[in-house]
Amino acid sequence: MEKALKEVTPRSEDFSKWYTDVVRKADLMDYAPVKGFIVIRPYAYRIWEFIQSDLDARFRATGHQNAYFPLLIPESLLTREAEHVQGFSAEVAWVTRGGGEELAEPLAVRPTSETIVGEMYARWIQSYRDLPVLINQWSNVVRWEKATRPFLRTTEFLWQEGHTVHRTQAEARAETEQQLEAYRGLLKETLAIPAVAGVKSAGERFAGAVETYTLEAMMGDGRALQTATSHFLGQNFSRAFNIQFLDEDGELKYGWTTSWGASTRMLGGLIMVHGDNRGLRLPPRVAPIQVVIVPIAKGREREAVLAHCRQLLQQLSPHLRVHLDQRDEFTPGYKFNDWEMRGVPLRLEVGPRDIAQSQVMVARRDSGEKVAVKADGLAASVAAILEAIQDALYAQALEHMQALSFAIDDYHEAVAKDRRGFFWGNWCGDEACADRLQEEMSMTIRCLPLPNQPDPQHLRSGADCAVCHRPAEHRAVFARAY
Amino acid sequence: MEKALKEVTPRSEDFSKWYTDVVRKADLMDYAPVKGFIVIRPYAYRIWEFIQSDLDARFRATGHQNAYFPLLIPESLLTREAEHVQGFSAEVAWVTRGGGEELAEPLAVRPTSETIVGEMYARWIQSYRDLPVLINQWSNVVRWEKATRPFLRTTEFLWQEGHTVHRTQAEARAETEQQLEAYRGLLKETLAIPAVAGVKSAGERFAGAVETYTLEAMMGDGRALQTATSHFLGQNFSRAFNIQFLDEDGELKYGWTTSWGASTRMLGGLIMVHGDNRGLRLPPRVAPIQVVIVPIAKGREREAVLAHCRQLLQQLSPHLRVHLDQRDEFTPGYKFNDWEMRGVPLRLEVGPRDIAQSQVMVARRDSGEKVAVKADGLAASVAAILEAIQDALYAQALEHMQALSFAIDDYHEAVAKDRRGFFWGNWCGDEACADRLQEEMSMTIRCLPLPNQPDPQHLRSGADCAVCHRPAEHRAVFARAY
Repeated sequence: MEKALKEVTPRSEDFSKWYTDVVRKADLMDYAPVKGFIVIRPYAYRIWEFIQSDLDARFRATGHQNAYFPLLIPESLLTREAEHVQGFSAEVAWVTRGGGEELAEPLAVRPTSETIVGEMYARWIQSYRDLPVLINQWSNVVRWEKATRPFLRTTEFLWQEGHTVHRTQAEARAETEQQLEAYRGLLKETLAIPAVAGVKSAGERFAGAVETYTLEAMMGDGRALQTATSHFLGQNFSRAFNIQFLDEDGELKYGWTTSWGASTRMLGGLIMVHGDNRGLRLPPRVAPIQVVIVPIAKGREREAVLAHCRQLLQQLSPHLRVHLDQRDEFTPGYKFNDWEMRGVPLRLEVGPRDIAQSQVMVARRDSGEKVAVKADGLAASVAAILEAIQDALYAQALEHMQALSFAIDDYHEAVAKDRRGFFWGNWCGDEACADRLQEEMSMTIRCLPLPNQPDPQHLRSGADCAVCHRPAEHRAVFARAY
Repeated sequence: MEKALKEVTPRSEDFSKWYTDVVRKADLMDYAPVKGFIVIRPYAYRIWEFIQSDLDARFRATGHQNAYFPLLIPESLLTREAEHVQGFSAEVAWVTRGGGEELAEPLAVRPTSETIVGEMYARWIQSYRDLPVLINQWSNVVRWEKATRPFLRTTEFLWQEGHTVHRTQAEARAETEQQLEAYRGLLKETLAIPAVAGVKSAGERFAGAVETYTLEAMMGDGRALQTATSHFLGQNFSRAFNIQFLDEDGELKYGWTTSWGASTRMLGGLIMVHGDNRGLRLPPRVAPIQVVIVPIAKGREREAVLAHCRQLLQQLSPHLRVHLDQRDEFTPGYKFNDWEMRGVPLRLEVGPRDIAQSQVMVARRDSGEKVAVKADGLAASVAAILEAIQDALYAQALEHMQALSFAIDDYHEAVAKDRRGFFWGNWCGDEACADRLQEEMSMTIRCLPLPNQPDPQHLRSGADCAVCHRPAEHRAVFARAY
């Protein structure tokens, strides 16, 4: 019965069921009373905090500051930029009553903040000396989604949204690319997730953007997840909101703006990239508990072993996030299972024989490998193994992505691969081909990759579109996506 | 003209106008398009981040974890605890439309989260082994206020709200007191704000609480500000939400719950306690910029002085938050004024003569004092002065509070003091006296002080109520409040 509690549907049997099993059994979330909303439980929230502090450091290092803009946006403001409102209007939640009265104007719960931020920036910016404005906000947003899935698509989610204004187009474009690079750094160095960087096709762009940059990561089932986006907004929003500045040459000019965001959706990506049939596998850099100590002893040896474990805890705690599992109502076997489900990277098993031999048994969550490690210099040994796990998880994820990346000449080739993976093909640029891909294959154009992405085979001259076979203009990644 | 930009109404002339001048001119906030909402600008938000990290460390040290609960609460849930809904219903903002459709049930934008948290806790808690649950949330809340004032009372504000469940009443009461102590630590050690700790009278309690603990700080004009509250909720919410656990003795019991919160209102307190006629004065521990370097040089000496300042910046930056004001469009005088308005604790002035004498001129924002400090060992000297400023600000605020704390036998005595300050008097416990105080004097019972508070004169036996002169049961602090 103990065991049944902590088992999940095998990944290969039903990936989607596996996912919902894991998010529940690892205590990452719970469903809220309102459909589409979730509670982010402490264990998942802690991972989110590590993501926040990683991104915050990157943003701060490039001169960004945090601020906070209101949750509620007047309807008249939201509708100011035509494409933007078209993209979001169907998803908006409206506050229509407040303080016991009907409101004269409905207020949108922010689905994103370009409009309210634009309105304020127009007031704050007068001169070229006020530029660039580099502001980020950590906040909640609401988008009324029809089909939701924990972390991946929820009606409310947490995110950061950066909003910047620049004097020149070149500077704004550089900002957009720099921020994409910040996300890539987070993904690669901290979350151990490889991704393909590219720009979105016109049909997939952020509503109101001139160019949307994206990072597409491959999940365990071969589907794509858009993990973060960075938008070059041109002068669309500065014209709609009148963000103008007096330039050094005495001319009044419109600013060039960008916006960029990453959300709690990343938690879903983290689970789906690294998880296995025993549950979560967390990269050590974002693991709330990096090392769990499990005492293995019965009867009269119990106290001595526990005392020794407490010493270990004290010894390791200054360097690592360590937890000692002292629960006496569970067997060691149950505890192993429990911490594996939660993806704790390393388990230290300590029994009387280990103590006698001045060693601990160290079990790696990523590989299942178990080795005896000398008690002498344990903190350094453990830290080194954690680094190795961090690297191994990235290497595995990269290998997985490469193994499921295929160069295709015709989109039907994806069928032979069960449509699992990233299909790199040529594209004419016609949205009709994108529609056909969607209708016939449930696949979308994830991005038009930037240079130096892991394309299994690059665009050849004279190539034709993998859908319509007319002359191709772009290289593209086709995939099913979350 | 430069000067006019950075002048504020004198505090003594109109404290309220002084306050709104400062929050605008120090770039702390701006008014949002919707009445009652504000934008928290980067300079103020940075202070909020320091408050957050201070509280987070205190909460974590006592075993609390962060999590995130939904923004929107179904009406049926909000109304489950009778007193609670009565206290909040008039202030709620309602989402009635989402995704283009009328909602079957209106959703409240959370005014506080006891109800939604209670609903989830009831699901998560089964056994005494699941207790205590110690969770905190950083979030935004909305309360439809009629009269608003930047930071002090805004329709939306940011805060943390802790929600805990305990096995016994004693443990829950201890938690309530421990969390009040955490806030006191923040106020005293970090924000340099003294406060009177006490419990609220029944009429001033949190809606649904058995006991509300509060910290009342005295603002520059002698009014009180409730800076943080900690509530012992008894079993009110656990009964309303069915938070039950199977105890070790095999009996099903209701949990004992607490909640506690502090908000961006604290920023208002910080301004009103320490600010002066030249603007903000920030305690070094929460100053976004602790030290500003202003180069003083003209013509051909400019470059050499600037180069020297850059060296100073490099030298100090690893230890302190330092900013070098390199703007060439402003005079040193304007810059002094500008950084004084923003409350930067220390200004370093560097001119050619200082460089020649291996010194810098150091000006203290708190006292206006200006001394020459040797360049040798500058980082340590500056750090020591910052510590002295932190202490001096607290000492001044304490002195101010003591100077305006009066023991009274009758509430009319407050008139002679212009009702400015904390009036310590006896109270019979009858709400009718509280009403009279409110109607005749615009004063409220701020709290019934805990033992060892700075009462100018303690309750004497046989004392009578300062309002009705019947026998008194309590010592109380009467004051006008924000």
